[in-house]
Amino acid sequence: MSRFAIGVDLGGTNLRVAAINENGGLFDQLSFLTEVEKGREDVVDRLSKGILQLVERWKDIYQLAGIGVGIPGILKMKEGILVASPNLPGWENFNIRAQIARRLNSPFYLENDANAAALGEKWIGSGRACDHLCFLTMGTGIGGGLILNGKIWHGVAGMAAELGHVTIYPNGRLCNCGNYGCLEAYAAASAVVKAAKEILESGKASSGLQKAASAGTKLTSAIIYRLAREGDASSVSIFEGVGRALGLAIANFINIFDIDTFVLGGGAVDAWDAFEKSMFEEVPKRSYIYRNDPRKILKSHLGNQAGLFGAAYLAFQS
Amino acid sequence: MSRFAIGVDLGGTNLRVAAINENGGLFDQLSFLTEVEKGREDVVDRLSKGILQLVERWKDIYQLAGIGVGIPGILKMKEGILVASPNLPGWENFNIRAQIARRLNSPFYLENDANAAALGEKWIGSGRACDHLCFLTMGTGIGGGLILNGKIWHGVAGMAAELGHVTIYPNGRLCNCGNYGCLEAYAAASAVVKAAKEILESGKASSGLQKAASAGTKLTSAIIYRLAREGDASSVSIFEGVGRALGLAIANFINIFDIDTFVLGGGAVDAWDAFEKSMFEEVPKRSYIYRNDPRKILKSHLGNQAGLFGAAYLAFQS
Repeated sequence: MSRFAIGVDLGGTNLRVAAINENGGLFDQLSFLTEVEKGREDVVDRLSKGILQLVERWKDIYQLAGIGVGIPGILKMKEGILVASPNLPGWENFNIRAQIARRLNSPFYLENDANAAALGEKWIGSGRACDHLCFLTMGTGIGGGLILNGKIWHGVAGMAAELGHVTIYPNGRLCNCGNYGCLEAYAAASAVVKAAKEILESGKASSGLQKAASAGTKLTSAIIYRLAREGDASSVSIFEGVGRALGLAIANFINIFDIDTFVLGGGAVDAWDAFEKSMFEEVPKRSYIYRNDPRKILKSHLGNQAGLFGAAYLAFQS
Repeated sequence: MSRFAIGVDLGGTNLRVAAINENGGLFDQLSFLTEVEKGREDVVDRLSKGILQLVERWKDIYQLAGIGVGIPGILKMKEGILVASPNLPGWENFNIRAQIARRLNSPFYLENDANAAALGEKWIGSGRACDHLCFLTMGTGIGGGLILNGKIWHGVAGMAAELGHVTIYPNGRLCNCGNYGCLEAYAAASAVVKAAKEILESGKASSGLQKAASAGTKLTSAIIYRLAREGDASSVSIFEGVGRALGLAIANFINIFDIDTFVLGGGAVDAWDAFEKSMFEEVPKRSYIYRNDPRKILKSHLGNQAGLFGAAYLAFQS
């Protein structure tokens, strides 16, 4: 009897529950809107019911290997408490493990969503062939996941891989974490918008960016990326800055870990062609290890499904 | 029959070979001058003879657990080749494993000296109680060693923990590695001297530093530390800069690894009281993990014997 696992990806907007086999084949999926406004108990209800539904549907055909749940935010791994989550307002210090456990009556793995995504990429994504992987997810913020010897590296308090909050420009922009110059403040989607606003305020913006701003549409990183593709000088330079920030951070990670595979995911990775040149220029400048022995820096293969696959893999891996 | 191991610490100046028991008791030691100028074959001869001498002396009383040799420089671990070593001029691309093996006729462990020192501190030094440890050795340069789950982390090419070459000030001083703004360029003993020269050249040096410079004695980090203790303003600010650089780097390592114990060793750690205040101010600014859950940042307990003990422990650990 072949095995399957349930993977859950709880996002701020979407909640997905999938049945995945040991070869990485996703053969059944339920998708909900998260609807955080209905309250966290309601979200946990739907999440748990989704799991039970898929288990019920397949448990006589395949053997259930286990259940994995990816959660956005800072988790106290031992206690199963969600300390804070920018994507789930009102869930601070929520004992999510206890809440799910009460509804499921069967064991499950809980994991930070970026860690789960890193594991997914290592399993059947861009990091398939490697033992160690560093994953960066570029969304509104920047999340990170570290795979060492094939397993998620949690650190002593389960807080490892806060890679978006590594200082890269000590006197740089204020970050949401209270520090100045974090990677997140220079390479997240929100940082792209911040950089555009700074250029606009300086009065030195090129015409494309100026027009977009004065047209009254809300500036997003997607719009600025479109402008960069059209050749707008300010927008091009903003994404060059993103690449330099990423390159600097990745070079540091290479010097620290001597890891061979880096995978970039998240929505802002769509702008890859706008930042890759400056990123690949910066890494060798900052790392003699890389100069002597280049490493792989790749786009996510699984896209927004990385976390779903990684969550399921938690069960297969155990 | 209780066991013993041989630990070797090959430095640019001194070569030490010690017999150490499983409790971390050093009960016999041979010390030589390295005398690099006599040629690398000659050094390897003395190193090997020292090992054989101690093995011979104790092998009937205790059981030999093994031999560990710590080497300064970049080692290709698999091949046993010393790629480069600032402290051993002329040893570039030297197959040191083959050279020692030919003389010993028994297996031995080869390790980078900073990694060995990290392991020594983990075994019976400042990191005794921890599973994970980050070690920084502050000498002419800055070396690093990472212990994860009780073992040295080597990375994919054996180049991990080049912690002195993490970029902390992207537009900062040129480093020997070719990058700008490495930690080594701000916190090594050589960086202290560079900072003093920069202040002197700017014409803004305080009187103590000016006098020391014009007296014609060669400026060293030890002299600048003495001036700092005497209250010389420029010298005080130089070591505050060392502390900020260390604090920034350590905060990044916490955000990346979530490690709980950091140990600083090497000669420049003698100036601890001159840099600790600014270091401990900087870490919480740069790491919200640390703000919520402070970590241990400690002076080396074993001093210049850390590498010797760590080399011996390689044999006990295996």
